[in-house]
Amino acid sequence: ARPRVGYFYAENAEKRVMNNQLKKMTVKEYQSIPVVAKESSSVYDAIVTMFLEDVGTLFVVKENSILTGILSRKDLLRASMGKQDLSSIPVNVIMTRMPNVTMCEQDDMLIEVANTLIQKQIDGLPVVKKIQQNGEEQYEVIGRMTKTNITKAFVDLGDEHQRS
Amino acid sequence: ARPRVGYFYAENAEKRVMNNQLKKMTVKEYQSIPVVAKESSSVYDAIVTMFLEDVGTLFVVKENSILTGILSRKDLLRASMGKQDLSSIPVNVIMTRMPNVTMCEQDDMLIEVANTLIQKQIDGLPVVKKIQQNGEEQYEVIGRMTKTNITKAFVDLGDEHQRS
Repeated sequence: ARPRVGYFYAENAEKRVMNNQLKKMTVKEYQSIPVVAKESSSVYDAIVTMFLEDVGTLFVVKENSILTGILSRKDLLRASMGKQDLSSIPVNVIMTRMPNVTMCEQDDMLIEVANTLIQKQIDGLPVVKKIQQNGEEQYEVIGRMTKTNITKAFVDLGDEHQRS
Repeated sequence: ARPRVGYFYAENAEKRVMNNQLKKMTVKEYQSIPVVAKESSSVYDAIVTMFLEDVGTLFVVKENSILTGILSRKDLLRASMGKQDLSSIPVNVIMTRMPNVTMCEQDDMLIEVANTLIQKQIDGLPVVKKIQQNGEEQYEVIGRMTKTNITKAFVDLGDEHQRS
């Protein structure tokens, strides 16, 4: 059979255009401001912060914005179903702690972050900058990436005001 | 000045490829199964359902899956911060009720739904089918669209196995 050269060419051209657009989209351009809690904050205070800041994920940090853990709305809801006094439980009892936190960096492609969010079934992850502190690798929290940011990027793809 | 015809042509070609891809993506193809609660369910039961089903939004229905309201994780978390007994409050006290619920239909384009989620700052919305009941227009819940579905669609755009 005759190879369908034209067909394959068109397929690849479409894919190339699409991938070119996607590769241009990085975390830096779409990230939100991070919302953090101290390790000693109570679960009650964390819930209040989540409402005031209207976010679904809080990053738990120590001095210099160094990441120590992460709290989801789900973690807080689970805690509030118990019989305990929420203002007496510190967040570091219920948070997911390092090194079990999935992170991303500013130059990562959005498509990679989106894939991570789907694969790991999480709502958001911290944008971090690696730093050396006391001879150890630490992660400074500098941003926040969520499914909302990805949804915004999806909307931009179809927008009239195309990205250059 | 000479019009930059070639330049505009390339711009439009890119945009056309992108829009063609996006237009092919509809709710039908990406929707999830809806998770519902009865109007008489307690807030406590709704929270348990949310955990068991691992969803962030519950649709409140009456007989025949007719939509009467919607409950977000945020609504439930707010309720659980009060001093009340969660098992004695029915969900229809705290839900957002019709006609104030944003909905979509199976043939809607994903890009439109994504735009709605961003503009209205909501996490998910019911996929409905309009039906006539007792001479009134009602909405049967047949699916669920969330930022997770949009994120999945974004991942698919960059996927090797391109959609035909």
